[in-house]
Amino acid sequence: MGKEITTREQDYSQWYNDLVIKGQLADYTAVRGCMVIKPYGFALWENMRDVLDKMFKDTGHVNAYFPLFVPKSLFEAEEKNAEGFAKECAVVTHYRLKSDPSKKGGLMVDPEAKLEEELVVRPTSEAIIWSTYKGWIQSYRDLPLLINQWANVVRWEMRTRLFLRTAEFLWQEGHTAHATAAEAIAEARQMLEVYADFVENWMALPVIKGFKSPNERFAGAEDTYCIEALMQDGKALQAGTSHFLGQNFAKAFDVKFSDKENKLDYVWATSWGVSTRLIGALVMAHSDDDGLILPPRIAPLQVVIVPIYKGDEQKQKIDEKVHAITKALKAAGIRVKYDDNDNSRPGWKFAEYELKGVPIRLALGARDLENNVVEIARRDTKEKKTYPLDGIEKVIEDLLEEIQQNIFNKAKAYRDSHITQTDSWDEFVKILDEKGGFVSAHWDGTAETEERIKELSKATIRCIPLNNANEEGKCILTGQSSLQRVLFARAY
Amino acid sequence: MGKEITTREQDYSQWYNDLVIKGQLADYTAVRGCMVIKPYGFALWENMRDVLDKMFKDTGHVNAYFPLFVPKSLFEAEEKNAEGFAKECAVVTHYRLKSDPSKKGGLMVDPEAKLEEELVVRPTSEAIIWSTYKGWIQSYRDLPLLINQWANVVRWEMRTRLFLRTAEFLWQEGHTAHATAAEAIAEARQMLEVYADFVENWMALPVIKGFKSPNERFAGAEDTYCIEALMQDGKALQAGTSHFLGQNFAKAFDVKFSDKENKLDYVWATSWGVSTRLIGALVMAHSDDDGLILPPRIAPLQVVIVPIYKGDEQKQKIDEKVHAITKALKAAGIRVKYDDNDNSRPGWKFAEYELKGVPIRLALGARDLENNVVEIARRDTKEKKTYPLDGIEKVIEDLLEEIQQNIFNKAKAYRDSHITQTDSWDEFVKILDEKGGFVSAHWDGTAETEERIKELSKATIRCIPLNNANEEGKCILTGQSSLQRVLFARAY
Repeated sequence: MGKEITTREQDYSQWYNDLVIKGQLADYTAVRGCMVIKPYGFALWENMRDVLDKMFKDTGHVNAYFPLFVPKSLFEAEEKNAEGFAKECAVVTHYRLKSDPSKKGGLMVDPEAKLEEELVVRPTSEAIIWSTYKGWIQSYRDLPLLINQWANVVRWEMRTRLFLRTAEFLWQEGHTAHATAAEAIAEARQMLEVYADFVENWMALPVIKGFKSPNERFAGAEDTYCIEALMQDGKALQAGTSHFLGQNFAKAFDVKFSDKENKLDYVWATSWGVSTRLIGALVMAHSDDDGLILPPRIAPLQVVIVPIYKGDEQKQKIDEKVHAITKALKAAGIRVKYDDNDNSRPGWKFAEYELKGVPIRLALGARDLENNVVEIARRDTKEKKTYPLDGIEKVIEDLLEEIQQNIFNKAKAYRDSHITQTDSWDEFVKILDEKGGFVSAHWDGTAETEERIKELSKATIRCIPLNNANEEGKCILTGQSSLQRVLFARAY
Repeated sequence: MGKEITTREQDYSQWYNDLVIKGQLADYTAVRGCMVIKPYGFALWENMRDVLDKMFKDTGHVNAYFPLFVPKSLFEAEEKNAEGFAKECAVVTHYRLKSDPSKKGGLMVDPEAKLEEELVVRPTSEAIIWSTYKGWIQSYRDLPLLINQWANVVRWEMRTRLFLRTAEFLWQEGHTAHATAAEAIAEARQMLEVYADFVENWMALPVIKGFKSPNERFAGAEDTYCIEALMQDGKALQAGTSHFLGQNFAKAFDVKFSDKENKLDYVWATSWGVSTRLIGALVMAHSDDDGLILPPRIAPLQVVIVPIYKGDEQKQKIDEKVHAITKALKAAGIRVKYDDNDNSRPGWKFAEYELKGVPIRLALGARDLENNVVEIARRDTKEKKTYPLDGIEKVIEDLLEEIQQNIFNKAKAYRDSHITQTDSWDEFVKILDEKGGFVSAHWDGTAETEERIKELSKATIRCIPLNNANEEGKCILTGQSSLQRVLFARAY
């Protein structure tokens, strides 16, 4: 009954893959490193996207669409950015195929259709967008420019994992232009708050807000803000980033504006993004050995109703009641499905919807109907309870909120109990090996030490938390003096 | 005051470009043949997309996302399709850039990072989708499979025009799989009706439903259904297509299903799509020499309110009234903007919103307020009329509907008066040269004649209308016998 899922203890990584594939979120394709997001997974992404899109619009942003391709000469313009992404660029070099004379029905790249200048498939869009902004910005009146784009991007990764790291992925990228550094920094911080709000309150995933060490910054950024989440295997996952880009791209693309006093200055920039990687985080943070556990607020399906009956007469009575319930639930904006498909048995359906993480399952039988009750199973706790049918809509509404909160609380309790403070290098490594999670430790602030810690422990600095406490101490590795602790972890 | 627009009579093609660029819909970019869809244009596309998406979902379809890249060997599999698109394929051949030793800060394609197999950037997704469907379809229980995708595609065009023909464009592509030919044909027909419904009732653009001659079919299709619209210069524009693909892709990718009797058969397919090209059609069909005219149902902004005042006291009173009006309009779901930006004068604003095609403009001055009236200007007729302020929301609601209908009626009257029947070749050419529009004429049914007519007149068979009347006659060019008229036109 149902589909076999590897347990977390057996093989965490295989468990994750099983959930994604058997839970119908995504699948591999014939294209190396590229996945297909299946309808169930895409419906989840649509829910996430719609909420984020509204948050962006509520904070004054508008959407636009910029080209997929970046001519190599533009891509080169901001050197650090180019250097950071050069190693993972898919490059279009030709614009035509022709018949392959050596193979019937075969095609080959037409050598005569070589592009004069190669086109990079965007790994991120700062270059193409800032080359376009140059034509749009002349005066302070054109600022701020607050634009977001929903798009696909390509980063050629050698080792890929569904959602977490694929050659092509979907994301949104905000690209804003401002008259002052302060305004740009405020924008980058604002979007970090938007991301934290979304991930915590919709995805039920607690995050730590912070900024990156110089080593871990986005290529081309002056500062990278981030939110970091913790997975059930004790590894951290960067859930979103927001960058203060200074005037780097404005200088690379010569984007100046005249201020109120008619003085020319380069424009200040931010960019910020979250991607389908968030789905990977969602799966890994909440699910269990029976399948996905999806937070009600973004679950494609919030409630499923399964009838249990013998014969048409019982079925008809159940149908009648269920139609009234689904009608009321839909009117309340709840995503509900009545699964009366008679190809599969109730037990099989129960397992299937557990696997797919539907938050609430109702099972309604003929005897229930006689007693005017219904059994409700919660996906998060697996608790089953019988409720009176009268007023069931309100019970469901409340339960959805309770489940949302419970999923968050559970993830938060786990996360909070996995931030460990230490001042000893041996303990540092031991915590990472045995307990996992974030380790709060002193660091001398140098890139060399950061690199060395990574080599020795496989842990990176996930972030320097916002509003971090000042605390004098000694670097966990070198013993050099330090003024604050930072958060280390092994990470996805 | 305002921006200069070329008139239609001066230069129709330049008029179109002026509207798109000065109306803030889109712009050229540094990437050859690729445009940027600007926020105003993208808001229009979002409105169109949301309506279509709902229509697709209401007819049982779900969204998914398939890879951008198609390995060359998969692309080749359906020969006709491959042949049809081979000449316009952007091809990724490498996956890395490296430092260019000949140029400081420069990058070059790393010759050591050549792909074993080239990747085609999808010009359409039948190949990648059917190679994936193979893993999803085993039995009749897996059918029908009704999937849609919103995506970017690339077709390398030598001569490009904003929205109408660009190297990259946005579209949706439905790809469905069925157990029988009849069911697949019914699906293709259903989606043609959905498209016609959308284009007529939302875009206010009348269309002729029909199917293509074999010459004009989609590469790989058994039958291509289409909707054809007429532009103001008398040229036709294909606004959407829906294809019955037979078993061509199922055979190319070996996608079989077992039916209820356990017999194996190839699956039947459809695909259907509309693109950002529709925005080009919208612009060309409705607009005038003062700018865009957008149908209210999809206009990003339906109502703009401009205050006319001297001094803060007048302004404050107007503000108060306007806030009450906008609140009521927003509550009724109307997209309204109060433009009280004091950087520009009312006359400049009037011209600007006319250019951008906002259906209704309210101008509210201090004296109007005293008299409890407001002036409303309709963009479609340019008519101005003063209305009492009391009950103005209802007036606006009704007017939006009236404008929607009027734009459609106007386009329909033009279209209907530009379908001309003829049986003489000389007249056929004369109509095309002097009057434009569709010409209804007999054709002997051969590809050769169709090709010859195209060479001689630049007109193509736009479609064979659905439910076409049987009528014996003689081919307009060859005099051979014919059993029905078909519609010819010069086209975009």
